[in-house]
Amino acid sequence: MRRFVVIGQTATASGDFSLEDLPSTSGRLDVLLRCVRAALLVSHGLRRDTVVYLVLLGGPLAPRTVRVDGAIATYVRPDERSLAGLVRKVLATPRAGRDAGGPAFTPMPHGFAIAEGGLELVLPDLGSFTPYLLDENAPDIRAAPLALEDPVFFLGDHVGLDDATRARLASAGAVSLSVGPVSVHADDVVAIVANELDRRAPTVAL
Amino acid sequence: MRRFVVIGQTATASGDFSLEDLPSTSGRLDVLLRCVRAALLVSHGLRRDTVVYLVLLGGPLAPRTVRVDGAIATYVRPDERSLAGLVRKVLATPRAGRDAGGPAFTPMPHGFAIAEGGLELVLPDLGSFTPYLLDENAPDIRAAPLALEDPVFFLGDHVGLDDATRARLASAGAVSLSVGPVSVHADDVVAIVANELDRRAPTVAL
Repeated sequence: MRRFVVIGQTATASGDFSLEDLPSTSGRLDVLLRCVRAALLVSHGLRRDTVVYLVLLGGPLAPRTVRVDGAIATYVRPDERSLAGLVRKVLATPRAGRDAGGPAFTPMPHGFAIAEGGLELVLPDLGSFTPYLLDENAPDIRAAPLALEDPVFFLGDHVGLDDATRARLASAGAVSLSVGPVSVHADDVVAIVANELDRRAPTVAL
Repeated sequence: MRRFVVIGQTATASGDFSLEDLPSTSGRLDVLLRCVRAALLVSHGLRRDTVVYLVLLGGPLAPRTVRVDGAIATYVRPDERSLAGLVRKVLATPRAGRDAGGPAFTPMPHGFAIAEGGLELVLPDLGSFTPYLLDENAPDIRAAPLALEDPVFFLGDHVGLDDATRARLASAGAVSLSVGPVSVHADDVVAIVANELDRRAPTVAL
């Protein structure tokens, strides 16, 4: 299974943004939505072996995390507006408390789920995993060994990652990797990583 | 200079599509718009050495081609709706005849230009170039020699390329290459090719 965790420093955790002006009203949630497309969709199919987490740290309801599980996802289309509509419905659910010890993620329609917290809820949800931090100026992913069974790739949005997140991922043993000499958009990073994985192990797309 | 020519079999050549439902009303112009982002935009910058052609073969005004020149482009933002708005304005200009022997492309604001035709006008506009056809099941771009001075990458949309286009590109000497074992979306193809080029020669981004 391949997993991507995209951390949106400003992306809104509430569903009150406008589909007519996504970048300005959603704290650049559009950046994260494009990562969902790049991670899950291939030509005429959806990667059933891929899960995406969007950690939303912007707005009054933050932190919240939306999870999209390719194994059960439906209605995931490539255009931003359609993806934004799906995520908006998920975020429109009222922020809820949860039972201590219960599952952090509440299932929603179409393979989505939501949790009322950020990275501290994502890390336990991942179970067994090998963490990689996608970062500028890090060693090249092409030359790096990759754990192909359970890799999890953490990446930031247009703002990058804050020091607390970096420290948390470092203590989880994350290996820093870059996708090349030019710093590219988060969705391009995801596309390039998925391509690197495709070259090392088959994906499951239907 | 790097150039991408994206051929949209159904993408509309007229500006009467809806920004509220881009995929359904534009003949999947959204696929081509995402290629513009992937080709031109990097983190906090725009590739000044990259030009994108969108060959629009759908709708009553087809064929028309929109060119975006990174060297002079302005107001190019990553979200689909913003890109769609820019292209819609370009397409809203009435279809015009042109003087025989005059330039095929009419300059428009923000680094855009439009031509009243398809590939038959793009090929002369390219001047000197080395053509590559991005295709499934072709030899891997990673292992291929690439002309780094003047490469032009031709690719199709979600429908793929028709036989006439393939024949035309073959007669222009296009070398077929793939980006890996999985058939991915056109914008991911562009991102992966740009990454391959970044590894072989520096890009100019500002």
